[in-house]
Amino acid sequence: MPNINGERLLGDLRRLAEFGRYKTGVHRPTYSPEDMAARHWLCGRLEEAGLTATLDGLGTVIGRNHASGPRIVVGSHLESQPRAGWLDGAMGVMYGLEVARAFAESASSKALAIDVGAWADEEGHYGAMLGSRSFCGMVNENMLDEAKNKTDGKSLRAALDEAGLAGRPREVMKPGEYVGYLEAHVEQGDYLESCALRLGIVTGIVGIHTYRITCHGQQNHAGTTRMAIRKDAGVALLRLWHALDSRFPVLAGPTSVWTTGKVVFDPGAPSVIPGKAEMLFQFRDIEPSRLAVLERSVEELVTEATTSGPCRFEIEALSRTPPHAMSTQFQDQLERAAEMHASGQYVRMPSAAGHDAQIFATRLPAGMLFVPSIAGISHHYDENTKEEDIVLGCQVFADAVEFILRAQA
Amino acid sequence: MPNINGERLLGDLRRLAEFGRYKTGVHRPTYSPEDMAARHWLCGRLEEAGLTATLDGLGTVIGRNHASGPRIVVGSHLESQPRAGWLDGAMGVMYGLEVARAFAESASSKALAIDVGAWADEEGHYGAMLGSRSFCGMVNENMLDEAKNKTDGKSLRAALDEAGLAGRPREVMKPGEYVGYLEAHVEQGDYLESCALRLGIVTGIVGIHTYRITCHGQQNHAGTTRMAIRKDAGVALLRLWHALDSRFPVLAGPTSVWTTGKVVFDPGAPSVIPGKAEMLFQFRDIEPSRLAVLERSVEELVTEATTSGPCRFEIEALSRTPPHAMSTQFQDQLERAAEMHASGQYVRMPSAAGHDAQIFATRLPAGMLFVPSIAGISHHYDENTKEEDIVLGCQVFADAVEFILRAQA
Repeated sequence: MPNINGERLLGDLRRLAEFGRYKTGVHRPTYSPEDMAARHWLCGRLEEAGLTATLDGLGTVIGRNHASGPRIVVGSHLESQPRAGWLDGAMGVMYGLEVARAFAESASSKALAIDVGAWADEEGHYGAMLGSRSFCGMVNENMLDEAKNKTDGKSLRAALDEAGLAGRPREVMKPGEYVGYLEAHVEQGDYLESCALRLGIVTGIVGIHTYRITCHGQQNHAGTTRMAIRKDAGVALLRLWHALDSRFPVLAGPTSVWTTGKVVFDPGAPSVIPGKAEMLFQFRDIEPSRLAVLERSVEELVTEATTSGPCRFEIEALSRTPPHAMSTQFQDQLERAAEMHASGQYVRMPSAAGHDAQIFATRLPAGMLFVPSIAGISHHYDENTKEEDIVLGCQVFADAVEFILRAQA
Repeated sequence: MPNINGERLLGDLRRLAEFGRYKTGVHRPTYSPEDMAARHWLCGRLEEAGLTATLDGLGTVIGRNHASGPRIVVGSHLESQPRAGWLDGAMGVMYGLEVARAFAESASSKALAIDVGAWADEEGHYGAMLGSRSFCGMVNENMLDEAKNKTDGKSLRAALDEAGLAGRPREVMKPGEYVGYLEAHVEQGDYLESCALRLGIVTGIVGIHTYRITCHGQQNHAGTTRMAIRKDAGVALLRLWHALDSRFPVLAGPTSVWTTGKVVFDPGAPSVIPGKAEMLFQFRDIEPSRLAVLERSVEELVTEATTSGPCRFEIEALSRTPPHAMSTQFQDQLERAAEMHASGQYVRMPSAAGHDAQIFATRLPAGMLFVPSIAGISHHYDENTKEEDIVLGCQVFADAVEFILRAQA
């Protein structure tokens, strides 16, 4: 069996966190100088581990092993959310590097074929999961021509040019090249910690529906317009919100979540009755049937709100990502490894956040392993995980990779 | 008795609406070239009417009559809200001009002393009711140094300089100079129209309380953070809003109004639980005791919201304008004139909007006359009033001015 080297793993994670260090976390947006330096550093580390490293036309780094036989690809992402945590994405890539090294060092596993990827822009600075979608053959050049930075509007092409990536080919996996994809990640929630567990075996990645709900009323003077004749778009929208806030707990499943992330009133002045109001409403669930029930409920409440008047509502689905199931065989192999190293301290659970694994899951058997996030903090520089949990997760991940490859041989 | 000339009045109103014409209304922000051109045009018209016109250091225009004896000042404002109506403010100033002319043309009233003012920036582009506050001696130079345009942040001093007003003295009324202040205005609401009435005699101007309510929660991931442990500042704020929306109809008086003009979630992204949320909440009433009840209710609900958790609320009063009663003698004189020209077609009513008259009311007896707004539309270029109502209002206004002055003689 491969034996991972915990100190070497933690040392590499700490070195990686120097690229774009921000307080206790990192600020490493896709294609920033710090992000590109991290990608070049990773190429060197993969080569030192005996893999052939390629930096592709989107900044994805792929380290290829020279062994033959059933081949697995593992990885995650290097770039970060703004001023966010040091482990989100980075840990999954460093697990890949450490597992490749541990395999090479063990007589029994040195012949196993493991490739390691750092998929560009999972965090969606230019388009969610761009690198893994490209690697899975879902991205064409037109899509790249149109992509823009969601914060400053810079075109993807200009960013690639500045990062020195223009003209490089994009790496795309070949049909049948891999038996599957495996990814490790911090949980980003507090479920494992709240249950005093150390490992999460991901059953699937939730579907996400996001809607823009717009209410059209009549802008008017907030003094002289009597309450009885107002067509206040803000009031109407907030009453719809209240209906959603009352209905959703009844329809929700045990892991459903729903969020109103944004509300805007137009014109947004203290003495003006809003003529227009808008909210972004999102829900997530692992069950396609429950997503359908929740969607129907939102649509019904919006229709009822227009019918009861005096304002008119519109609803637009901004995105509808379906749930993606993880391979049950991979879940079994992860559980077998977890039971060996942390008996009774793991659980099967859905992932409520999106990951590159959901892209691979549309092409290959895929699996994911979670380690606990301290206090569930995520997308913040205070994100962290206990060192012993990081090391434990990597050993379980390494054993699960071996089990998966041996099962295919 | 003075006889106003309806065609002359309407002609001047139409001419004035050419300055900054926008669709069926006007766009004439304070100190814009169009606004300044209107002020210079008014000076000319006042001089033609036999008054001595002064453009002061804030752009206020005052036309002074040379008669002696008890003196009244009448007026309103010339600048407009952005892309707003042609009568808001303008009508009250043109009433003053027309009444001054009608007085001069009538043997019985030519000896009466009426001054006509167009108070700068009632609409508050740089500071609400700046001109009338300055004329009433409530503005010092420090306040002017600090004033900025609320839309583009330009300093008042720079705007005055560009408008050619820098260095001009500000006109300030002398103690005992006037027996009172009278202002005519469009209602800006639909109350008169809905009652099929033609004149409103203003009993007082409502008090306005405006609050910023801020909720502090904990920003987190909208997928991985379970519903049970969220500290969602947006949800907490909207639940407080719902409590206000339920409580206010019970406590409100017949003319109370309340408005949530703005809601902002921070950071305002679809996949992020808001860590902070804020709303602007305003209410208006004519009764000081009811304003106190409503304020106590808001404060109680905010305190309850913090106590019940999981978020913490702050409330800040941005402004608390008290109600301003109009002179009962002036109301009686306005009613006497109204009864002569439109028997049974008038009503005493509060003003739910702020006006320069509330500034004068802190120094002098003050009165206001309303004419109906078609469909109650205000602060929009579709604002309008029937011509016969404009003309009727001016005649009633003229007679009331005479009654007031004769009662003082």
